[in-house]
Amino acid sequence: MAKAPVLTPRADDFPRWYQDLINKAELADNGPVRGTMVIRPYGYGLWERMQSEMDARIKAAGASNAYFPLFIPQAYLAREAEHVEGFAPELAVVTHGGGKELEEPVVVRPTSESIINEYFSKWVQSYRDLPLLINQWANVVRWEMRPRVFLRTTEFLWQEGHTAHATYEEARDYAAYIHKEVYGDFMVDVLGIDVVLGRKTPGERFAGAVNTLTLEAMTGDGKALQMGTSHELGQNFAKAFHTQYLSKDGGQEFVWQTSWGSSTRMLGGLIMTHGDDNGLRVPPRLAPVQAVVLAIKGEEAVLAEARAIGERLTAAGIRVHVDDRTDTPFGRRAVDWELKGVPVRVEIGPRDLESGTAVLARRIPGGKEPVALASLARLIPGILEEDQALLLTQSRERRESRTADVSTVEAAVEAAGAGGWARIPWALLGAAGEAGLAEHAVTVRCLVAEDGSVPDRDDAPGNVAVVARAY
Amino acid sequence: MAKAPVLTPRADDFPRWYQDLINKAELADNGPVRGTMVIRPYGYGLWERMQSEMDARIKAAGASNAYFPLFIPQAYLAREAEHVEGFAPELAVVTHGGGKELEEPVVVRPTSESIINEYFSKWVQSYRDLPLLINQWANVVRWEMRPRVFLRTTEFLWQEGHTAHATYEEARDYAAYIHKEVYGDFMVDVLGIDVVLGRKTPGERFAGAVNTLTLEAMTGDGKALQMGTSHELGQNFAKAFHTQYLSKDGGQEFVWQTSWGSSTRMLGGLIMTHGDDNGLRVPPRLAPVQAVVLAIKGEEAVLAEARAIGERLTAAGIRVHVDDRTDTPFGRRAVDWELKGVPVRVEIGPRDLESGTAVLARRIPGGKEPVALASLARLIPGILEEDQALLLTQSRERRESRTADVSTVEAAVEAAGAGGWARIPWALLGAAGEAGLAEHAVTVRCLVAEDGSVPDRDDAPGNVAVVARAY
Repeated sequence: MAKAPVLTPRADDFPRWYQDLINKAELADNGPVRGTMVIRPYGYGLWERMQSEMDARIKAAGASNAYFPLFIPQAYLAREAEHVEGFAPELAVVTHGGGKELEEPVVVRPTSESIINEYFSKWVQSYRDLPLLINQWANVVRWEMRPRVFLRTTEFLWQEGHTAHATYEEARDYAAYIHKEVYGDFMVDVLGIDVVLGRKTPGERFAGAVNTLTLEAMTGDGKALQMGTSHELGQNFAKAFHTQYLSKDGGQEFVWQTSWGSSTRMLGGLIMTHGDDNGLRVPPRLAPVQAVVLAIKGEEAVLAEARAIGERLTAAGIRVHVDDRTDTPFGRRAVDWELKGVPVRVEIGPRDLESGTAVLARRIPGGKEPVALASLARLIPGILEEDQALLLTQSRERRESRTADVSTVEAAVEAAGAGGWARIPWALLGAAGEAGLAEHAVTVRCLVAEDGSVPDRDDAPGNVAVVARAY
Repeated sequence: MAKAPVLTPRADDFPRWYQDLINKAELADNGPVRGTMVIRPYGYGLWERMQSEMDARIKAAGASNAYFPLFIPQAYLAREAEHVEGFAPELAVVTHGGGKELEEPVVVRPTSESIINEYFSKWVQSYRDLPLLINQWANVVRWEMRPRVFLRTTEFLWQEGHTAHATYEEARDYAAYIHKEVYGDFMVDVLGIDVVLGRKTPGERFAGAVNTLTLEAMTGDGKALQMGTSHELGQNFAKAFHTQYLSKDGGQEFVWQTSWGSSTRMLGGLIMTHGDDNGLRVPPRLAPVQAVVLAIKGEEAVLAEARAIGERLTAAGIRVHVDDRTDTPFGRRAVDWELKGVPVRVEIGPRDLESGTAVLARRIPGGKEPVALASLARLIPGILEEDQALLLTQSRERRESRTADVSTVEAAVEAAGAGGWARIPWALLGAAGEAGLAEHAVTVRCLVAEDGSVPDRDDAPGNVAVVARAY
């Protein structure tokens, strides 16, 4: 009789597989308030690595971290008409504080454009104060009707960047820089996800933006997931909040702004892109644990060698965990690390010790082989590089093989229904075609130029719409 | 005519000086909702350094980071009677979400013992799951009637540790370890503050704890500031949330717990301990910028040398910022870095360049002298070490010289009123004396043993009460 699978197979029920994986790999639990989540230590360890890699790129882009309040007066949101219209249905409202009803209810931030502009308008006086480049790591709340852990939660963690510039061109270029060199670089290079970079159609823009740039990943079931967005806000918030500066010529000018965000949703993207029927597969550059050394038995010589291997691998620059919980059966621990997607397992027991070897198990391509103890620290760095590249290749191959070029709305709907993406010339589709797709729960994920680059306007000739069902 | 001081002198009005410093050094602004704050980039940079140093120590103590929801069902708090009584007056309550009135209002976390225990009770099954050592970096909300930036704010940032252990002794020892080796080590060694470690009296304990350990700093005006606390929770929350484990003997036992927190309040402690009439003085081990290189004029040769010095200092392991904003007058920039408390300024202009020197200005002891360019990278690391030690010495000397040994409540009140601390035998003071002090807004900050160590019970013979007015 075949062993029962640890997870619901992806082919049977992809959303169920996703939820199983999150539970069994101990990534997260549902919170007590509907739509909230508890991020467990292993899941949070992945998020900490994401933060660390992303934060370094954000700082390299010249931005500084700061922190703005969780509570925003309702009136602030209302100052930008599209913004409040977009967010009003999702707000959480605090009506009581310190045992009393508040004179003015406050909202829990769904995003911080409004409160940040209130301060930008004080801090920016002259052209010397520009560009002002701020980022914040924070929690935000958007009341969620159809929650799904990591992908759509009532509370989530994110970074939100907010910048003010002297000219339209500077703001446009900065939004594009964050899109490509911060988000694109991180997602391709660290997450190993072959995201498509494109431009949102007017109907899919952020509430209050004049242009939204997006990064879209293809999930294991051929849907799309928005992994991050970078917005040009034009002067919309500047005008609403009177964020003006004294120019070199002595005139008062409104600033040009951007905002950009990426969130714990990326954890969902990571799982849905790289996970397989045995669990998660974590790209080595991201992995909080790149190699786990498992002592098979609790004999002192085995434990000592496991720890010695751990030290040698650490010295070789590898992030290592030594699993010496030998009061838990070895098989259960091996399955657990498989579920958690640690790229390399080094398994060592009494017989290995005798032969001077350990078993090296690779999670990403799969497979096991004995390796001389003395070779481990030399071999593993190369294996991790290979695995990193392999995940990106698999992600690219999936996207390429499951994307169809089509020329009618019907064909696009069919492709999306069959678990894939479609590409259709935007000139053929247009806003009317976009509305037609929506009837089938298919959306334009983004527009890309003929050569695959990000178009600088919606209606540039040759623009292609990438359409799919989305999470 | 003497130049007007940049800040209100401390001797004139210490609280006003504090607020002036926070504004002028651009550390924080008040938020729009009463009691909230905006932490500006330089203030947040200090917090990021605190987080980084503290996080490393917390991880070395074996704890893992995780994240629990902001929103807690009201019923959770109510399960532990003292806990809800302590926090009810400070709660912010969300009554509306997603455009509707909620069936059950939720509170914004004031601290997370309750929600974390809900999950500990699911995660802990057997003795193999213990100890469970969790930390979270998060924002919390406590509605504040008398807010003061960093010290008492309606929303603040903190870390809160929560652990579960198999035995009373393990929990007690872990709370003590965090108190001394994590908090104490960080505050003395990095913040350069000569905190007193002690034990709270029963009246000053955390709501729901059986023992609270504290670290108290003396401020520049001789008051006390609580910098962090570590609590033994006994089995109070375990019983309220049924957090039980299967022991090795096969019995069901309640776990023993600890919780411990430190917050953005430490920024207030830093300012109030090390600030002087010219601004902040940041201990080098904490400083996000340890040395700033100021180009006095915008000539190309000066800018090039300033950047070259920056590179050499960076290569010597120093955190450096090159200030080349030569369109702002040099004097204003020098005052700005003085306010921000950067330990070392290297000032270079055309004449310095000719003589192959730069002016080295030291913020902490004060003073300026020309130094050969070639010597900077060799000299500065030693200077930073000296400055770090000097701040700690000054903090210790202040505390020692402004602490009086007394034997009556009246004398203690007088010492506290004169801007100092008093030490009085706990056997003389007792709960009745504590109540007497309270009438004069003087509190027992902590109990210490005769030899200065942390007593293991309230009424140990020789216990001394440290009493003061407190922020």
